[in-house]
Amino acid sequence: MPSYTAPVEDLQFVLHDVLKVSEAQTPGYDELEADITAAILEEAGKLTSEVLAPLNVVGDKEGCRLENGVVHTPSGFKAAFEHVKAGGWPGLDMPEQYGGQNMPYVIGTAVGEMFSAANQAFTMYQGLTHGAASAILAHGTQAQKDTYLPKMVSCDWTGTMNLTEPHCGTDLGLMRSKAVPQEDGSYRITGQKIFISSGEHDMAENIIHLVLARIEGGPEGIKGVSLFIVPKFMVKEDGSLGDRNGVTVGSIEEKMGIHGNSTCVMNYDGATGFLLGQEHKGMRAMFTMMNEARVGVGMQGLAQADVAYQNAVNYAKERLQGRAVTGAENPDGPADPLIVHPDIRRALMDQKSFTEGARAFILWGATLIDAAHRGGDDAADGLVSLLTPVIKGFLTDQGYDMTVKAQQIYGGHGYIEEWGMSQFTRDARIAMIYEGANGVQALDLVGRKLAADGGKHVMAFFDLVKGFIKDNAGQDPEFDADFLEPLKAASKDLQSAGMYFMQNGVKNPNNALAGSTDFMHMFGHVCLGLMWARMALASKQALAADKGDPDFHQSKLATGRYYMVRQLPATALHLNRISSGADTVMALDAANF
Amino acid sequence: MPSYTAPVEDLQFVLHDVLKVSEAQTPGYDELEADITAAILEEAGKLTSEVLAPLNVVGDKEGCRLENGVVHTPSGFKAAFEHVKAGGWPGLDMPEQYGGQNMPYVIGTAVGEMFSAANQAFTMYQGLTHGAASAILAHGTQAQKDTYLPKMVSCDWTGTMNLTEPHCGTDLGLMRSKAVPQEDGSYRITGQKIFISSGEHDMAENIIHLVLARIEGGPEGIKGVSLFIVPKFMVKEDGSLGDRNGVTVGSIEEKMGIHGNSTCVMNYDGATGFLLGQEHKGMRAMFTMMNEARVGVGMQGLAQADVAYQNAVNYAKERLQGRAVTGAENPDGPADPLIVHPDIRRALMDQKSFTEGARAFILWGATLIDAAHRGGDDAADGLVSLLTPVIKGFLTDQGYDMTVKAQQIYGGHGYIEEWGMSQFTRDARIAMIYEGANGVQALDLVGRKLAADGGKHVMAFFDLVKGFIKDNAGQDPEFDADFLEPLKAASKDLQSAGMYFMQNGVKNPNNALAGSTDFMHMFGHVCLGLMWARMALASKQALAADKGDPDFHQSKLATGRYYMVRQLPATALHLNRISSGADTVMALDAANF
Repeated sequence: MPSYTAPVEDLQFVLHDVLKVSEAQTPGYDELEADITAAILEEAGKLTSEVLAPLNVVGDKEGCRLENGVVHTPSGFKAAFEHVKAGGWPGLDMPEQYGGQNMPYVIGTAVGEMFSAANQAFTMYQGLTHGAASAILAHGTQAQKDTYLPKMVSCDWTGTMNLTEPHCGTDLGLMRSKAVPQEDGSYRITGQKIFISSGEHDMAENIIHLVLARIEGGPEGIKGVSLFIVPKFMVKEDGSLGDRNGVTVGSIEEKMGIHGNSTCVMNYDGATGFLLGQEHKGMRAMFTMMNEARVGVGMQGLAQADVAYQNAVNYAKERLQGRAVTGAENPDGPADPLIVHPDIRRALMDQKSFTEGARAFILWGATLIDAAHRGGDDAADGLVSLLTPVIKGFLTDQGYDMTVKAQQIYGGHGYIEEWGMSQFTRDARIAMIYEGANGVQALDLVGRKLAADGGKHVMAFFDLVKGFIKDNAGQDPEFDADFLEPLKAASKDLQSAGMYFMQNGVKNPNNALAGSTDFMHMFGHVCLGLMWARMALASKQALAADKGDPDFHQSKLATGRYYMVRQLPATALHLNRISSGADTVMALDAANF
Repeated sequence: MPSYTAPVEDLQFVLHDVLKVSEAQTPGYDELEADITAAILEEAGKLTSEVLAPLNVVGDKEGCRLENGVVHTPSGFKAAFEHVKAGGWPGLDMPEQYGGQNMPYVIGTAVGEMFSAANQAFTMYQGLTHGAASAILAHGTQAQKDTYLPKMVSCDWTGTMNLTEPHCGTDLGLMRSKAVPQEDGSYRITGQKIFISSGEHDMAENIIHLVLARIEGGPEGIKGVSLFIVPKFMVKEDGSLGDRNGVTVGSIEEKMGIHGNSTCVMNYDGATGFLLGQEHKGMRAMFTMMNEARVGVGMQGLAQADVAYQNAVNYAKERLQGRAVTGAENPDGPADPLIVHPDIRRALMDQKSFTEGARAFILWGATLIDAAHRGGDDAADGLVSLLTPVIKGFLTDQGYDMTVKAQQIYGGHGYIEEWGMSQFTRDARIAMIYEGANGVQALDLVGRKLAADGGKHVMAFFDLVKGFIKDNAGQDPEFDADFLEPLKAASKDLQSAGMYFMQNGVKNPNNALAGSTDFMHMFGHVCLGLMWARMALASKQALAADKGDPDFHQSKLATGRYYMVRQLPATALHLNRISSGADTVMALDAANF
């Protein structure tokens, strides 16, 4: 059975040596001293590796079961959920007034990586609840907050997001679910929603569905969509549970992975709903959940890549097969371990350099979210809104590829379910799809975020890269050659691509959109390149100051060099493709495909 | 449920317009007139789309079931197998004297693509039989041939390959299964084999296992391994079946995909075996099967990519979602079909340009195999032995990626099993692993094939590319710019990579092996680039001669241009990685992963 070890040392390195969180000006960050975060991360690490990880295979094998309208989660899930609740983990970064611990989002993110790595399907129950609670926090009335948040922050009640219908996913303007206003100010919600994660299950007293629907008589299309709170059980004035509401589970979807999470068809049959936020502004309210959810999904890409990598490394060290081409390294054994072979190392280094770079990228993004939300920093808000589709799209595409590479190291043993490597790829696959398929992320990036506010945020990103290079160049020729020069070249490629879009996208927007996925990927590489340069600098400084474990820092530098040499130059290929424009992409008539 | 349409027109184009098979000198090719091959391909197309494709999902859902030592195949498999046998398909390219039709291998390959695309798990039962029969044909005594081949060519008896043991897959020198010589010239075989495809099932009267084992007292390691024929039921002098042999199925593996094929743990407990070929030369005999199997597995990569692509195209044309950025294309409908969106097109063009290029590559490889085996052409034999790891490794890595892209077009519907897109990725995944994991293919290519016979074969490949460019340059500036120049640049990258290995691989072989997977991929791209240039030339000539369907040929040219612009330039990135050598790959101590 696969195992999971929480990457506490690496998270601490990113938080303190690289991002230097406790020195940041963001409100609440002054409390993030290294010993405090270490205590939290170690405790979370223990919980995730000892309680959640062993249930990962169980969830995959058993799946969820629907019987007489009741969804049964896999064996052990309910007890583990109580364990998680008792530790107060769901409310880690939620406001104290609703029972949370008010820690910054960056800590929630660091802990969230561990939860997702240990058991993605399980963690989604609390993850969706967190997203729904965030939307109520941002858009609810005080009465709504008081009614729902304390129970959701504790996960006594869980939450869901209801967007998709059979005929519409990305294009929510086609939505048919309707809401009829009632005299008491509530609405009757009718319609069918599909792909509802955690839609129905047996681990919570109540489930709070956030549902997009169209108020009768409102505008056509996306501008007529509103968001509603639809509780599974009505909540009485005193907070106790009342009647069952008119929402039922129709079926559970049979999926490629995340079997431990119940993905439901939900039927709303005149269910009572309460408007959340303003009429016809449902998309705005929903996006509060979606942006957070997208960063969370990007994190899942990293998380699955990391746990798959950890197991692949263990296997590569233990499995004896063949001899090193440069001479036996285990001469007394029947063969050498797989890890002696250069092609195995290449695959492992791809994974290692991705996961460590991605971890820094996500945590950096989380500090920007904190700076925006806690510190009111508009520049940080603009920057993270630009980076969100990159975090989601790039990290889940690459994260999936990394799980496939980890599986490959096992040979035939990776293909049978017994070793658990197949599950990592099957679970990771969904992250490329949900919360906006990655093509939609690329569209959001190129079609919307790049030009937002006159291109201010992308300019800020380039200034940030240039500033880092300028501040650190000329002090160490090796560092310049290994890190700053490749970063500069890659960033230049990214700028050239942006320039191409500006010059060619106006006369024909297809010229921009045909390169959108390539742009998202090259942007991701530049971000990881920046992160590696920052990490390398931190490790160099730590080594010079004789601080920390020299092996850790030497490995960090070596892994960073690998990324700069082997991965970052992909930007040139992406630029090459982008610069070819839309002609070859759009040449065929649909009939000739 | 997904559908499958056999690509008869495209296969005919490759066979006749591009490869011009009926004009080739290879014995038997003179019979391959266009109307003959069309009749065969149409008949096979009908069988595969109407009989085999509908059973694909059935096989995935039901899987195989082991009860009291008997393996039950999924509903409908047995009837379909009888159908296939009645049509004589298993013996299509087998010798007439054993009941086959003696068609060239290239026809077997064209038909094989359809079978694999329609139902890979089902087709493996006859595929393994074909491989085992080929080994007996090449290495068996006349008596062995007479005993086994007629029944195997008809698939009344099926065959298996038994290599892997729990502790050894790639490194077969570690093998423990043993063979004890008996006085009657037979051997007693004892040991356990795992991952045995079609190892036990209910569709054949007898199963002929080819088993690698070590004759007691023989040399250590790989040089002491011999190959044995171990029938499930002993065969009497008169050809009728006798006693059950000492081979039993231990269990069926639970796998990520190809559920319709029974992947068995096989236990040999003093089973009677007959030496096939020479003592201690088992690997040589087994490689007869393996080389054929590797080309066949490369074909599976193409086949799964094609069927996934076909369904993705249908979905992209039907699913209405969003509007074209350049103005509504379906103004009377609620939204435009997915196929109007540039990023959807990019993904579809990636798939289309891959599958069509891969089809030509495989069929070209098959003509080389025919030239070698039927025509005794040593140059063709050398060339195809060089290309075999590229066919296997590149086409299965890329083929898998293409199934993932096809699945992505379905959004959430791609992740649920109902639409069948998940199965294509899960089935395609195995092709990167079995018959030598793709890392081993890369090792074979760079460590063995490249330098074989003094590098003669790779030089021949480059001469072939150069010759094609020289013969066709300077006649049409557009063709030169669109096809010949990109091909020349990519081929130059490949040569530079080979040069790097020569200059740096001798002093440190890790410098070559660290770039092996990149080299395999760039080699694959150059091969597909060559195929696209050849196809484009054929289509250009057909258009000029007003021959065939102009839409078909215009689409071919447009798809080729896409490949040359968007895919072929990947060679530069691979060269870049290769030229960085082994330093960053091998820098870390194993303990620091």
